[in-house]
Amino acid sequence: MAKEKRVEQITDMEVDFAQWFTDVCRKAQLIDYSAIKGVFIYRPYGYAIWENIRNVLDAAFKKVGVENVYMPMLIPESLLQKEKDHVEGFAPECAWVTMGGSEQLEERYCIRPTSETLFCDHFKNVIQSHRDLPMKYNQWCSVLRWEKTSRPFLRHREFLWQEGHTMHATAEEAEAFTQQMLNIYADFCENVLAMPVTRGRKTDKEKFNGAEATYTIECMMHDRKALQAGTSHYFGDGFAKAFEIEYTDQNNRKVNPFQTSWGVSTRLIGGIIMTHGDNNGLVLPPKIAPTQVIVLPIAQHKPGVTEAAAAIAARLEKAGLRVRLDSSEQSMGWKCAEYEMKGVPLRVECGPRDIENGQCVLVRRNDGEKTVCALEDLEGTVMAQLQAVHDGMYAKAKANLDSHIYEAHSLQEAKELQERNGGFVKTMWCGSEECERKMKEVAGMSSRCIPFAQERLDERCPICGRHADTMIYWGVAY
Amino acid sequence: MAKEKRVEQITDMEVDFAQWFTDVCRKAQLIDYSAIKGVFIYRPYGYAIWENIRNVLDAAFKKVGVENVYMPMLIPESLLQKEKDHVEGFAPECAWVTMGGSEQLEERYCIRPTSETLFCDHFKNVIQSHRDLPMKYNQWCSVLRWEKTSRPFLRHREFLWQEGHTMHATAEEAEAFTQQMLNIYADFCENVLAMPVTRGRKTDKEKFNGAEATYTIECMMHDRKALQAGTSHYFGDGFAKAFEIEYTDQNNRKVNPFQTSWGVSTRLIGGIIMTHGDNNGLVLPPKIAPTQVIVLPIAQHKPGVTEAAAAIAARLEKAGLRVRLDSSEQSMGWKCAEYEMKGVPLRVECGPRDIENGQCVLVRRNDGEKTVCALEDLEGTVMAQLQAVHDGMYAKAKANLDSHIYEAHSLQEAKELQERNGGFVKTMWCGSEECERKMKEVAGMSSRCIPFAQERLDERCPICGRHADTMIYWGVAY
Repeated sequence: MAKEKRVEQITDMEVDFAQWFTDVCRKAQLIDYSAIKGVFIYRPYGYAIWENIRNVLDAAFKKVGVENVYMPMLIPESLLQKEKDHVEGFAPECAWVTMGGSEQLEERYCIRPTSETLFCDHFKNVIQSHRDLPMKYNQWCSVLRWEKTSRPFLRHREFLWQEGHTMHATAEEAEAFTQQMLNIYADFCENVLAMPVTRGRKTDKEKFNGAEATYTIECMMHDRKALQAGTSHYFGDGFAKAFEIEYTDQNNRKVNPFQTSWGVSTRLIGGIIMTHGDNNGLVLPPKIAPTQVIVLPIAQHKPGVTEAAAAIAARLEKAGLRVRLDSSEQSMGWKCAEYEMKGVPLRVECGPRDIENGQCVLVRRNDGEKTVCALEDLEGTVMAQLQAVHDGMYAKAKANLDSHIYEAHSLQEAKELQERNGGFVKTMWCGSEECERKMKEVAGMSSRCIPFAQERLDERCPICGRHADTMIYWGVAY
Repeated sequence: MAKEKRVEQITDMEVDFAQWFTDVCRKAQLIDYSAIKGVFIYRPYGYAIWENIRNVLDAAFKKVGVENVYMPMLIPESLLQKEKDHVEGFAPECAWVTMGGSEQLEERYCIRPTSETLFCDHFKNVIQSHRDLPMKYNQWCSVLRWEKTSRPFLRHREFLWQEGHTMHATAEEAEAFTQQMLNIYADFCENVLAMPVTRGRKTDKEKFNGAEATYTIECMMHDRKALQAGTSHYFGDGFAKAFEIEYTDQNNRKVNPFQTSWGVSTRLIGGIIMTHGDNNGLVLPPKIAPTQVIVLPIAQHKPGVTEAAAAIAARLEKAGLRVRLDSSEQSMGWKCAEYEMKGVPLRVECGPRDIENGQCVLVRRNDGEKTVCALEDLEGTVMAQLQAVHDGMYAKAKANLDSHIYEAHSLQEAKELQERNGGFVKTMWCGSEECERKMKEVAGMSSRCIPFAQERLDERCPICGRHADTMIYWGVAY
């Protein structure tokens, strides 16, 4: 008989949210520390979540004509330097390769912090004619940024992501595609991860190094801090000019194409944890949960129970669900705690009395709601309950977001609202970087985004008093 | 109307096989050169082949209980040095990171050439009890080996691969699993890539650095050179001891587990090209071809033709096939040459007369064989023809392999057979590294493998004349 072990306690989220987060990452076996500070190991359960995210997003990308490629991980320093704003932003965070085997390299190479320069160097070779456009590429890879601080999923020196890079014949088409990709991310977050988002544009101060415009989706975590969950950048023809990428247009003229890039990373997993998790651990959105349904036999030593549970698991698997049966010797209490910690969306319990009555019991992870399910309706009821889990998770997160957006008309009011409530504080804004810095200094908030859905709160910028046409969200961000 | 461009010529394989190979890699748009010597870009068509290989293999791995993880790309030098044989083999080929941002690192890190050391460092943390075993992990990633020479797919400084790493309670179980994985690779090559293999063991000289035994699958290319297509290693408990990995067994004793690792890489794509390709370009195995069927309308300006072709494509797509319709303005000649170059296994042609007769014409890429197909039997006939393409490709490659295995009874005979015919030369072997080196010096051949299927050719080693129990294959390898 296997020894019983209790699921270890995690810190209460109300007591210490940061410690709760780290505890969940470790106890749900999502991640482990490596020999290098700030570099993490994605364990099977954490990586399986990323695989599911990747599979759904990849299909959405391919639907809009995006093709996957794989570019080198190393960037020669001279290539990184071709676009001035870009290198200024990234060089301080680069890890540099200076030796190959026992030889000093003539030029040092950085491990990609992002791959605009590599894609541009390739685009220069493969784009000749307007018939080659649009060219829509993406890659799934890891990137490296040598940052000082780190936290699981939120800030790694090395992290997994996807980066899309596209080239278009016109500025209009590139602009439209930038926004299309942002909307794909936003829909994915809401419909797949049950994470409501605010869609908007970044200020010049916060935009990507080298971009003309950066669009963002901003989410609100359970502790009311903001998380930037995905970004999409419009580059104009700045990189194309720096890299001398030209195509022959329909009038036989040589012109520069227009560019976009867009990415999401394993940071999304951090967002899932902090949006949906509770004091029993992870709560996973059904659509990306590695195990969607856990089937547990009750009093499994009694005749027929394990077989009945196995039959249920087999039926659900046949219906296309990701199912596991746990008929191990661990106690029911241990199993329930374990699969709650792992955030499995739905638990199916099946004991001798259930079998007699031709039923089983479904328990939802997000709210503990129990449903008695007639075995003849098994597949349909389970599907409906999984949808109910998703809907319940989304509704709860949406309520958290909606009830923590505050309106301020002075710097002082903004500061007090943030200190009292967290969340997003919305104000008018004159558009100056000076006021943006002041908000950070005084109220500790950075600009999150200029929402697409604009409102007119006031006539003036509450920071400098000048005329203001723009409504902006501020917050404290991860 | 788009300008017509002709598919560019490629070198004849009989004239210059190496140049033919490079031409195919470029003209079929599989790969491009990057800014760094020896580092290549996987273009969409090349990467799509890899994605299909990955999807099939990944499912086979998961079926035997393997879980995916992602380990860091950087290895601290001190970690790499823990296993003596291992570091000796890999250190000369490592690329070293010595700077993070603007700071010199205290310890330099190498970019993983392979990840045994990283996995061991992690296993030490996560393996405690016999209940944690077996632990079967795999990762899909890129690795870096700073080699002097390079060729597309065959030898990159950075290449994509998968590396499996497992830990087992007993030596027997680990040994058996090592061979199970080799058989998964072998079956994959034969049943999916239509590449016949020879299964066997590597000599001590050729085995992996730090392994007790390395098993290999060896393929024969069209030019009769050998390609090592995949390897599987048994480590015993050597790494476990070096890294102090211990578990508590059922008798409550602390013992070391036993280890395996196994990998295949994008080298397989090189193998596909050189096994199946011809003077018209690539010939892709149907099961991993990004486009399995290309549908071409003939005389597409005539009423109903494009619609009929589109209907065919739609039906085949619905049947689960990867299909493309090309109704562009390019000429039929251009299109045929283009999709032959890209190795699309089956071409469907459909013109006005076909429509009248309720039929279409299927043309096989591998042998040019044409079949008239009644539209009512479309899906079944296309599936059968794709299977026929696979079978035809396998039969041709198997005939090439079988007819170029030669038997030698003296060093001189081995040398002459290789010079005259290429292929594998099989001899008895005494087991000494000295004789192995002599074969290389005199006949230019390295040992490929000690086949599992042994034969007794002779009583003596043809190199030294001593008693010999082992039959071995020699060859010139990529």
